[in-house]
Amino acid sequence: MLEELGKRAQTASRALAKLSSIEKNIELEKMSDALIANAPQIIEANKKDVDAAAANGINEVMVDRLRLDEKRIWAMAEGINKVAKLKDPVGETIEGWINEDGLNITKKRVPLGVVGIIYESRPNVTSDAASLCFKTGNAVILKGGKEAYHTNKVIVEIMSAAIETQDAIQFIDDVTRESTNALMKLDKYVDVLIPRGGAGLINAVKQNSTVPIIETGTGICHVYVDEAADFNKALDIIVNAKVQRPSVCNAIEGVVINRHIATEFIPKLEKVLGKFNVEFRADEDSFDLFKKATAATEEDFNTEFLDYILSVKLAANLEEAIEFINTHNTKHSESIITENIATAEKFLNEIDAAAVYVNASTRFTDGEVFGFGAEIGISTQKLHARGPMGLAELTTTKYVILGHGEIRP
Amino acid sequence: MLEELGKRAQTASRALAKLSSIEKNIELEKMSDALIANAPQIIEANKKDVDAAAANGINEVMVDRLRLDEKRIWAMAEGINKVAKLKDPVGETIEGWINEDGLNITKKRVPLGVVGIIYESRPNVTSDAASLCFKTGNAVILKGGKEAYHTNKVIVEIMSAAIETQDAIQFIDDVTRESTNALMKLDKYVDVLIPRGGAGLINAVKQNSTVPIIETGTGICHVYVDEAADFNKALDIIVNAKVQRPSVCNAIEGVVINRHIATEFIPKLEKVLGKFNVEFRADEDSFDLFKKATAATEEDFNTEFLDYILSVKLAANLEEAIEFINTHNTKHSESIITENIATAEKFLNEIDAAAVYVNASTRFTDGEVFGFGAEIGISTQKLHARGPMGLAELTTTKYVILGHGEIRP
Repeated sequence: MLEELGKRAQTASRALAKLSSIEKNIELEKMSDALIANAPQIIEANKKDVDAAAANGINEVMVDRLRLDEKRIWAMAEGINKVAKLKDPVGETIEGWINEDGLNITKKRVPLGVVGIIYESRPNVTSDAASLCFKTGNAVILKGGKEAYHTNKVIVEIMSAAIETQDAIQFIDDVTRESTNALMKLDKYVDVLIPRGGAGLINAVKQNSTVPIIETGTGICHVYVDEAADFNKALDIIVNAKVQRPSVCNAIEGVVINRHIATEFIPKLEKVLGKFNVEFRADEDSFDLFKKATAATEEDFNTEFLDYILSVKLAANLEEAIEFINTHNTKHSESIITENIATAEKFLNEIDAAAVYVNASTRFTDGEVFGFGAEIGISTQKLHARGPMGLAELTTTKYVILGHGEIRP
Repeated sequence: MLEELGKRAQTASRALAKLSSIEKNIELEKMSDALIANAPQIIEANKKDVDAAAANGINEVMVDRLRLDEKRIWAMAEGINKVAKLKDPVGETIEGWINEDGLNITKKRVPLGVVGIIYESRPNVTSDAASLCFKTGNAVILKGGKEAYHTNKVIVEIMSAAIETQDAIQFIDDVTRESTNALMKLDKYVDVLIPRGGAGLINAVKQNSTVPIIETGTGICHVYVDEAADFNKALDIIVNAKVQRPSVCNAIEGVVINRHIATEFIPKLEKVLGKFNVEFRADEDSFDLFKKATAATEEDFNTEFLDYILSVKLAANLEEAIEFINTHNTKHSESIITENIATAEKFLNEIDAAAVYVNASTRFTDGEVFGFGAEIGISTQKLHARGPMGLAELTTTKYVILGHGEIRP
């Protein structure tokens, strides 16, 4: 079944690669219009998923992420229109030169081909991912979570039916793990697999996929409060990075505090975060400086809490802070609060992460915020893409070489 | 054992990342000098490998690839000096802007970290790979073929002993497949794995590695002779691409010939390639146009012969030629011979390969020839790097963001 689907996606990808930007944009607008025109059908399918989730005792936050109403469908449609308006990276000449033999060599952006996306509950990922892949001339194979099965299926049906190259958006109509496993082995047809979800999903894909993958999302991020920190900046940034939206990957899980300022800083930190009922998991050295804290275990320093919990570690100096962060982070986003330029430079150079900040919140790590107009995910690996991925990260390159009969000497 | 080695490589990689270009170049020159100073020791170790190979009945071509003499050691040392002279890509700002929030965002090149290289017989890969990785601030873990075990080991010992950061060049002192398998699972410490060798090795790595890989090398490449081809160019290019060095990945394995010119072209082709005793594996349609040919099987069209064998396929038109090539190629290098601009453009756009040529030999696909100064391999995958890989492909990027207390609204 999946073999056949992969083959159809690959064939569609070759047709897509021939479309001009305008042709792709017209198709995207048709997808967007179709979602609005068929909103009642989507809401009906979504009701099945929401009812099943409620019946299965899934918590209200999760049910809410699943739920679609007219307004949310409108937002999905608007999202597609926005993608249509972005600049198409396909065809861009990245560099070009004439080599010693007289060959005219250019390096051009071309679509990847077929992109597989494995994702969990939120159904808006369906239209987001499909439109971003379409815009960049890629066919997409979507494997959504079983909680959103009916919703995802009808969204794909509506989007596909609206366009010419219907095979460009493929939906795996099977909620079992077997189909996920089969997708991971479909390297004959799938050029890249992007898992979007929790650490469990991502690790399973990493262990089993023979398709090249882009790891996304897991974020054990930190703020380091240096000796030369402006405390007001530090407190504002920590509050923002911890509590504005604790469930996302660019929120922080821990703070590292320079030992020399800990006695002065921690009571202030406890006060501002206390308002949000943040629980502190403090290392041995900082424990007594809190009025109320839990003793941190080694595991706490390796956990993405995604909750109102903050680990706290004291560092004797910058070197120790860098060493600690590089050992425990997931290479996502890290920030230092300091007014000292040499300290900032050392931190920026030596921290191993996709995004490193001075005096700013880690919450800024996001494709839209960076200015890419859209985001297919945040890569935490080093190959191909690192950090927020926009349209360009959904392309590869091709060397185009114009000769005049040249042979290699 | 490998766990420990990985950890040491990772620690070394952090030290390397702090070195300036000048510091790295001085170390590279020390490596180069040390190879020359210790040439007798290398030749002695190499003799063990060469004798063992001869005793095991390995053919003379392979034994020759293994053999080192003073001249070849000098060439290895020269290769390191050449790498030292290349421009260091680390630290380059690729792009930079100020986003809407006022954050100063720059995207910079940084080392990958730890690079694993699995390779087969030729011992010069040891010094090449080690120097390219060192130049780009990466630690390297080398797993060479068992045929060159003694040679590789002594080369690494000499190079490591010459420099400060001795752990930067790690050698897996174990010729069994178990250590290769363990290296493929060392994702905790290894950032990328590059297999260099035959299709069997590459496929094994692809199937089993949890470390991200860059596929290199396998080349089923073609020349398509269009209706509007200049026959002289076509013949020169096919001869060059087939027989100049049949054992390399950018040599062609097949020609596709437009049916309308086949009767006229094939006798000329047979004449020029006949001088080199090239065997033709002809499809049904072309078979009778040869004086002497073997009937091609489907398998022939999917085989990298690396030998004086050429498959031949007739195509009714450009579309059929493109379809045939995209079905059978390994996405390496493809060339069209035509004087027609529209035909050339369609071929360049629609062929799926790392390098596509008009009127030039596929043999040009090479990092040195392209002008990169060096090459770590030729990627046939679409993620991260595609085509010849120079120094830049041994780096990743990092977003460095300068704020002034910004929090996400």
